Amino acid sequence: MQLGMIGLGRMGGNIVRRLLQNGHQAVVSDRAQAAIDALVGEGAVGAGDLAAVVAKLDAPRHVWVMLPAGAATEQTVMELGNLLSPGDTIIDGGNSMWRDDIRRAQALAPKGISYVDVGTSGGVWGLERGYCMMIGGDKEIVDRLDPIFSTLAPGLGDVPRTPGREGRDARAEHGYIHAGPNGAGHFVKMVHNGIEYGLMQAYAEGFDILKNAGGKDRVAAEQFDLDIADIAEVWRRGSVVSSWLLDLTADALAEEPTLASYSGFVEDSGEGRWTIQAAIEEAVPADVLSAALYARFRSRQEHTFAEKILSAMRKGFGGHVEPGHGAPSPAAASSKVAR
Amino acid sequence: MQLGMIGLGRMGGNIVRRLLQNGHQAVVSDRAQAAIDALVGEGAVGAGDLAAVVAKLDAPRHVWVMLPAGAATEQTVMELGNLLSPGDTIIDGGNSMWRDDIRRAQALAPKGISYVDVGTSGGVWGLERGYCMMIGGDKEIVDRLDPIFSTLAPGLGDVPRTPGREGRDARAEHGYIHAGPNGAGHFVKMVHNGIEYGLMQAYAEGFDILKNAGGKDRVAAEQFDLDIADIAEVWRRGSVVSSWLLDLTADALAEEPTLASYSGFVEDSGEGRWTIQAAIEEAVPADVLSAALYARFRSRQEHTFAEKILSAMRKGFGGHVEPGHGAPSPAAASSKVAR
Amino acid sequence: MQLGMIGLGRMGGNIVRRLLQNGHQAVVSDRAQAAIDALVGEGAVGAGDLAAVVAKLDAPRHVWVMLPAGAATEQTVMELGNLLSPGDTIIDGGNSMWRDDIRRAQALAPKGISYVDVGTSGGVWGLERGYCMMIGGDKEIVDRLDPIFSTLAPGLGDVPRTPGREGRDARAEHGYIHAGPNGAGHFVKMVHNGIEYGLMQAYAEGFDILKNAGGKDRVAAEQFDLDIADIAEVWRRGSVVSSWLLDLTADALAEEPTLASYSGFVEDSGEGRWTIQAAIEEAVPADVLSAALYARFRSRQEHTFAEKILSAMRKGFGGHVEPGHGAPSPAAASSKVAR
Amino acid sequence: MQLGMIGLGRMGGNIVRRLLQNGHQAVVSDRAQAAIDALVGEGAVGAGDLAAVVAKLDAPRHVWVMLPAGAATEQTVMELGNLLSPGDTIIDGGNSMWRDDIRRAQALAPKGISYVDVGTSGGVWGLERGYCMMIGGDKEIVDRLDPIFSTLAPGLGDVPRTPGREGRDARAEHGYIHAGPNGAGHFVKMVHNGIEYGLMQAYAEGFDILKNAGGKDRVAAEQFDLDIADIAEVWRRGSVVSSWLLDLTADALAEEPTLASYSGFVEDSGEGRWTIQAAIEEAVPADVLSAALYARFRSRQEHTFAEKILSAMRKGFGGHVEPGHGAPSPAAASSKVAR
Repeated sequence: MQLGMIGLGRMGGNIVRRLLQNGHQAVVSDRAQAAIDALVGEGAVGAGDLAAVVAKLDAPRHVWVMLPAGAATEQTVMELGNLLSPGDTIIDGGNSMWRDDIRRAQALAPKGISYVDVGTSGGVWGLERGYCMMIGGDKEIVDRLDPIFSTLAPGLGDVPRTPGREGRDARAEHGYIHAGPNGAGHFVKMVHNGIEYGLMQAYAEGFDILKNAGGKDRVAAEQFDLDIADIAEVWRRGSVVSSWLLDLTADALAEEPTLASYSGFVEDSGEGRWTIQAAIEEAVPADVLSAALYARFRSRQEHTFAEKILSAMRKGFGGHVEPGHGAPSPAAASSKVAR
Repeated sequence: MQLGMIGLGRMGGNIVRRLLQNGHQAVVSDRAQAAIDALVGEGAVGAGDLAAVVAKLDAPRHVWVMLPAGAATEQTVMELGNLLSPGDTIIDGGNSMWRDDIRRAQALAPKGISYVDVGTSGGVWGLERGYCMMIGGDKEIVDRLDPIFSTLAPGLGDVPRTPGREGRDARAEHGYIHAGPNGAGHFVKMVHNGIEYGLMQAYAEGFDILKNAGGKDRVAAEQFDLDIADIAEVWRRGSVVSSWLLDLTADALAEEPTLASYSGFVEDSGEGRWTIQAAIEEAVPADVLSAALYARFRSRQEHTFAEKILSAMRKGFGGHVEPGHGAPSPAAASSKVAR
Repeated sequence: MQLGMIGLGRMGGNIVRRLLQNGHQAVVSDRAQAAIDALVGEGAVGAGDLAAVVAKLDAPRHVWVMLPAGAATEQTVMELGNLLSPGDTIIDGGNSMWRDDIRRAQALAPKGISYVDVGTSGGVWGLERGYCMMIGGDKEIVDRLDPIFSTLAPGLGDVPRTPGREGRDARAEHGYIHAGPNGAGHFVKMVHNGIEYGLMQAYAEGFDILKNAGGKDRVAAEQFDLDIADIAEVWRRGSVVSSWLLDLTADALAEEPTLASYSGFVEDSGEGRWTIQAAIEEAVPADVLSAALYARFRSRQEHTFAEKILSAMRKGFGGHVEPGHGAPSPAAASSKVAR
Repeated sequence: MQLGMIGLGRMGGNIVRRLLQNGHQAVVSDRAQAAIDALVGEGAVGAGDLAAVVAKLDAPRHVWVMLPAGAATEQTVMELGNLLSPGDTIIDGGNSMWRDDIRRAQALAPKGISYVDVGTSGGVWGLERGYCMMIGGDKEIVDRLDPIFSTLAPGLGDVPRTPGREGRDARAEHGYIHAGPNGAGHFVKMVHNGIEYGLMQAYAEGFDILKNAGGKDRVAAEQFDLDIADIAEVWRRGSVVSSWLLDLTADALAEEPTLASYSGFVEDSGEGRWTIQAAIEEAVPADVLSAALYARFRSRQEHTFAEKILSAMRKGFGGHVEPGHGAPSPAAASSKVAR
């Protein structure tokens, strides 16, 4: 099958590779000519801009947009809406906000252009492992694109089958689902990422507790100098907490047990935030997912204004003085006291 | 190798089975004669009480205690301490508090009896998958017991090897580690369970958000009727959140997509609580692990006293009346208002 | 000064009373004729509908809308926008979302109609204590309405003056501020309510811990049968946690120490939710304010789907069976075990 | 009445002052001679060490220990236990762990020495405002010490009386309670401080959201440059969130609106931690109080190990590279992508 691909970053480029390696054709475009050239060398057709992509595709055209969510995707989808013809389809494989999908689909419908939102998980490993895809859009279009999705998906692989799934949609077992109408694909992917944050933070806190088990506040027999890398490794087999994220953690710790080269400055993307927003709209308690997001917010600041408020209050009621923040009186120094 | 086993529940019984199936001998005891008889039928030697276990083992004896943490384990360990001889070893494979391990090891040392604490993960799947073990104790004893541990452990299996582990302790890759001195085994297992709570809660919140995505508070195009079972299944392949816990969730949802037969009353055990205690002692922020624990506390109450306090305050400042808690005045009913 | 008031509920009615008692005039309207009549009896002019309100006011007119945030307020503001004349002003004293204020102000501007958003705190106590007001809008209009605001505000009262405020805007000390342009008033009020949720939850959790201090899990000497009502009372004087919310809690506990008549079903309103949304937009960690909101969400459900997911997982890995959810096997019953 | 006081820091010294100013006698001791001298100048009797304190008091003696919780208090109480006589009483007015109180009282009982634990709130303001006291111990002793407690307590003051307290223990209204047997005083004070942390964090998060309301991520009309000091002030009158902690915040912000001189490094003391421990023992959800504690833990670290784990995972699955942590490939730079 033939697919246009806009955006050849880590995800877009490898999606094209996986398609080319399995007998599909691709017309590819990117701001960076080097990225286009690399894929042309692997069998893709290069195109300098959106118009060229459209011109080089056969109707009905299918153009996959794999760009950062937000302005880049919005602008590209809207421009494609002006270039494409009735019967064509735009696929947004990025991490758009699901409400944007609904709006775009409604805007494109009068032109006879279909829109499909695909939440795509797999990261830099997708070329090898395949991409887990959560798809939103009209059944007819999603079915028509099935050759693309089934190629990109991981397939059954050697993951044990889930008992009792006979008679259910077989696509789920192959690593992709038609989640529902427009927006549903990115909604499910959004929650996927929200869960991802929570899982990551759970591991992170646990390893932090292990790392600090040698604290000198404890008596000698209670101070443990634990091998964090070995612990990550041992949990990969037979334990309740084994997971792919744990595998990656074990990789990183085997490479550098102290993780000293990492700053610990952790970014977050839209999906984590939108997940909380969805939880709040639905009145679903999401304590863990929220805490995971906030830990990232906090990681990017030296100190919050909130903490300065706390310090100011403490000085106010107890005369507590921060290290270096003024000198306590002699009497105060003589005995630390209750307040 | 020969091992005594006290406690033949879901874990103890299967541990014995895995040992018997791999050429080891076992002397087994349990309060329930039927549990003993079942294992005798599979090749174990039965013993009616602790003294009989000790009598039927060759010196140096190794006795594994697999009982509920707390009084049952404590009493059994102490009684064994009186029955065993210098050179013998007690292994606590349950979920004891790590400080109890240190205390017990110190109490047994003058008698020449060794103590080993083994955090054992694997649940009802251990017989088939093997048990992930985190071991605390003296190197000499842990090494001597290696035939037992290596048999119980999952082994390399088909889990991909972690790059860069050349030269590191090979036991971790086989699913067991010597974590450190007494207490270290259960400390690591404790944190393992703390993480487990956090992971479970992250998935649980995410599925809750998906389940409620069809909420009528949203406009029609934004109401999604998502297939939760298919979503759990699709994430098992190629996604960032794939894990064994997700596999189990997919199993349960394939069997019963609504989970209607579950009450949602969720118990917790000591390790989750002690993990938070350890975090607090070490001044490690553990927001996610704590929230996961509290969600379980909350699940077991109809209403908390805290919530009644909130209701009482709201009535106090805003005249807010709970459903069924007195009738609002006509004027109040005419227009809901700000406070 | 003359003010129109739409909505005579607990807040609107008392605002009018406070104005009437201090020499202002009011034209009042409500869906409930009884509410109108009551205020007419206290000196207000009654009006059957919005058009009548507009007709009975002198230009430039000032109409205060005190209705539930959402559709009721939106519709009323829009209708007034069609009835009023250039130079008139609409004041939204309810709990509108601050972005709605910005949109409305922009929609009304071309008609020459001003819009002022007033976050109003005070609840059922405002008539007596005065109303704390956070105001958003153009300086000229806010200044023109000062006679209204200064009357409604609590004034200096007997609250000790804050040292160092010489030269600062004196209105803050009197209980009202011009927070900024449109939306700023309700933004500040929104955060006020977000804080309110956090404060309430902090007290609620603390009292819950006190209430459960007699738990039978503790040895006898550690079981305290605390007098919650006396504790709330004692903290009102000289303690760090004294506050108006504590005063209200002491009131409620003096009336009914067990709070048994309260269900503990706790509602939340928009401001608590929007506060979290604002925090997320600003990447500000808001763990406490979020947790307070989620506690309310949770209070309104018998069990969450999240909890059922937890139960299902626990059954999956450990064979843990909920009370009443199937019968454990005899062997399982003989000894509870680690997983 | 005559009281011995050990520890003349900010709390101990002012407690003595308040007693001296109201007709009581005090024998005082401190490691710092200057602290003793100051109080001798105000009418106290100075004593160089514990033995001297005991020698200068009339039997039955009452010695108040006002030292940092932990080793200093423990050692002093034990030493006093050896110096005092049957019928004497030791009062621990600091922030001891409540279980230590129970243990000490049990250790002193055979000697005929009574022990009273007093949770004392008031900070540097106690001299002027009086001290809120939560007292644990035997009724007879607590009653005997009433002249001391009633002098130190704030008294009714001008705080409005709580309706419905007729017939209840009048001491609560005067700012002190006999909470229960030994340990109960410090237990209640512990929870008081736990609540204090939660209240402080609620305000802190709210002010942080206000502070960041001018964020450039928002469109111009939505960027508010709010006057934080004025907001703190305005909420002091007529709002739902008025409190003594808010008064102190308004003080600090009036003095320095940016709080720039504060580092935001926030200490915590034992009570906040023990409160969480108590909540966990009682299975009481304490999300807010825990989050408040963790915010302090986090404030004292540049980066947590948890955050480095997160960074390592992100690099693992998405090739996400931290600022300054290696250079992304050209292709990756061309378009940020989904994972």
